[in-house]
Amino acid sequence: MLNDYAIPPLAEPLRERVSAALDAKTKPPGSLGRLESLALTLALAQDDEHPRADPARLLLFAGDHGITQEGVSAWPQEVTAQMVANFLSGGAAANVLARSVGAEVTVVDAGVAADLPPHPDLKTLAVAKGTRNAALEDAMTEAECAEALRRGAALAAEATANGARIILLGEMGIGNTSSATLIGSALTGLPVAYLVGPGAGLTADGVDRKCAVLEKARARHPGTLSAEAALAAFGGFEVAMMTGAAIASAAARVPVLVDGFIATAAALAAVKARPEIAGYLVYAHRSAEPGHAGLLEALSADPLLDLGMRLGEGSAALAALPLLRAACDILRDMATFESAGVSDKAG
Amino acid sequence: MLNDYAIPPLAEPLRERVSAALDAKTKPPGSLGRLESLALTLALAQDDEHPRADPARLLLFAGDHGITQEGVSAWPQEVTAQMVANFLSGGAAANVLARSVGAEVTVVDAGVAADLPPHPDLKTLAVAKGTRNAALEDAMTEAECAEALRRGAALAAEATANGARIILLGEMGIGNTSSATLIGSALTGLPVAYLVGPGAGLTADGVDRKCAVLEKARARHPGTLSAEAALAAFGGFEVAMMTGAAIASAAARVPVLVDGFIATAAALAAVKARPEIAGYLVYAHRSAEPGHAGLLEALSADPLLDLGMRLGEGSAALAALPLLRAACDILRDMATFESAGVSDKAG
Repeated sequence: MLNDYAIPPLAEPLRERVSAALDAKTKPPGSLGRLESLALTLALAQDDEHPRADPARLLLFAGDHGITQEGVSAWPQEVTAQMVANFLSGGAAANVLARSVGAEVTVVDAGVAADLPPHPDLKTLAVAKGTRNAALEDAMTEAECAEALRRGAALAAEATANGARIILLGEMGIGNTSSATLIGSALTGLPVAYLVGPGAGLTADGVDRKCAVLEKARARHPGTLSAEAALAAFGGFEVAMMTGAAIASAAARVPVLVDGFIATAAALAAVKARPEIAGYLVYAHRSAEPGHAGLLEALSADPLLDLGMRLGEGSAALAALPLLRAACDILRDMATFESAGVSDKAG
Repeated sequence: MLNDYAIPPLAEPLRERVSAALDAKTKPPGSLGRLESLALTLALAQDDEHPRADPARLLLFAGDHGITQEGVSAWPQEVTAQMVANFLSGGAAANVLARSVGAEVTVVDAGVAADLPPHPDLKTLAVAKGTRNAALEDAMTEAECAEALRRGAALAAEATANGARIILLGEMGIGNTSSATLIGSALTGLPVAYLVGPGAGLTADGVDRKCAVLEKARARHPGTLSAEAALAAFGGFEVAMMTGAAIASAAARVPVLVDGFIATAAALAAVKARPEIAGYLVYAHRSAEPGHAGLLEALSADPLLDLGMRLGEGSAALAALPLLRAACDILRDMATFESAGVSDKAG
């Protein structure tokens, strides 16, 4: 499935014109720092001198993980389904932050291990009711993994067709830092022990136990794996759907704002399979989850925020969204030295 | 003047209740990182369990500097007045970002060396048409400095009385990184050579020349100075007005979002004179101007953003404002474990 979508090249012919437009604005060249490079990134991705950040839509994928049977999380699995209900009633951090920054949210059952009551705002894309226990067997079959990739991609394609100009990728799933750690290790070759962390609140002893479980799981598939193999082995229907969504968004020239550790593992899988999507990805933040730094480094990513956040749900992507909007607005709305009658540096 | 306003103590009795409220929200405790500590800061400052970031108002002070006669800036002095016109016609970065993030802007002539045409949106608070050349003589008299502090404070008092819940401090003034470098050196004892930088675009040679000029100016007033003495000696009507505005905002329990290097020099003067205002100040970013790190360290400040910005005008404060709004929204709007029926960690 990972090759089903054509990724257009970035609009390199615009680079010089957009850079010149930024330099003509009434400010010392480069003085808006990352906002300027972000404006250029969005322009090249959207193939538009005046890129737009609105409407922005968070695709929020929830899934469960069989590996939670091994005691790798501080929280019980039932919390995943409870949080889906919280997303649907608008009370979670993702909802609050989405309203705060002006983004829309699509809540997705990517594979929750519960019978979720139907809800008009819930997209039911579940491939199965949670993955298998990756410590003992592959989390998904190849066919299940391909289906998850396909469904995530189709959802993003629908969102971009309906007008979204930025796609934010977020997730919820008890146990999914385990999945992300394993995928990250399998794609980068970094040791599990280097990437493992407390997730949503393990003690130091808990992290040691989690590390032992993950090393056992990893030992079933040592070495460096392909994106599909890593996703199937170590799961996360929500992770695979984010990978598919990233590819389909890029195919539609819609930049993807990647949330934290788990979304970055999904992005890494997407980049591993389709290196040409890298220019469409913007990394929202550096998570407090220690393994995130290793994945960001593997991607040569320069994240926007570093605020000690570690929640997931797209929370950091939402927190970063106003920076993308600001970048677009600078390019569209700022006066030039000429239009404003301001002397340039030459005096 | 610096003692004219009473600064209320932070609402410490709220600390435990607000911390408990944050921990009761449906997320692992502390997982929203800096957004949570920011929510607490704003609650203690505003003495309100549900602090608000709106309306937010940028006070944008423009002033000129006699020391530009020494060739310390890459830009001609006339740019200050031209940028005031740009602010008034809405085309500058400050305007664009203010619209982007939903803040209001007050443009202030704090002491521009030009006859500015009257404009309904321009606050004319100029104490003089620019400071004297601080390399040769004090930039302001004691009386001028006191008047600038007073006028800045009165403006902030008016803004808070009119409902502003966050005050953003920004500035424009060709030559004012020189002023900020000297003030920073005089208040912290850090060497000029440690704090000096390219400002709005000097070459390395230009920075060397600027450093020599500033060392000469600093030699007229060696050692550590009081806030008033540093401001009078090294100027910036716009800097002194920001110092006064910070104090009056804190007096009204309105948190102050401090922009970059120059605004931080003003904040440092305010904290030096009135240490009890420290809890009312939030630092927006770490500027690319190298001296900013030294001033932030002297203030034990932990800025929100680090995006290589170095424009001033309140641009980074505006870029950071959505984070304050998000922090307030989390505290006000997120569901609790109990209200959402989500299992807490104990399961």
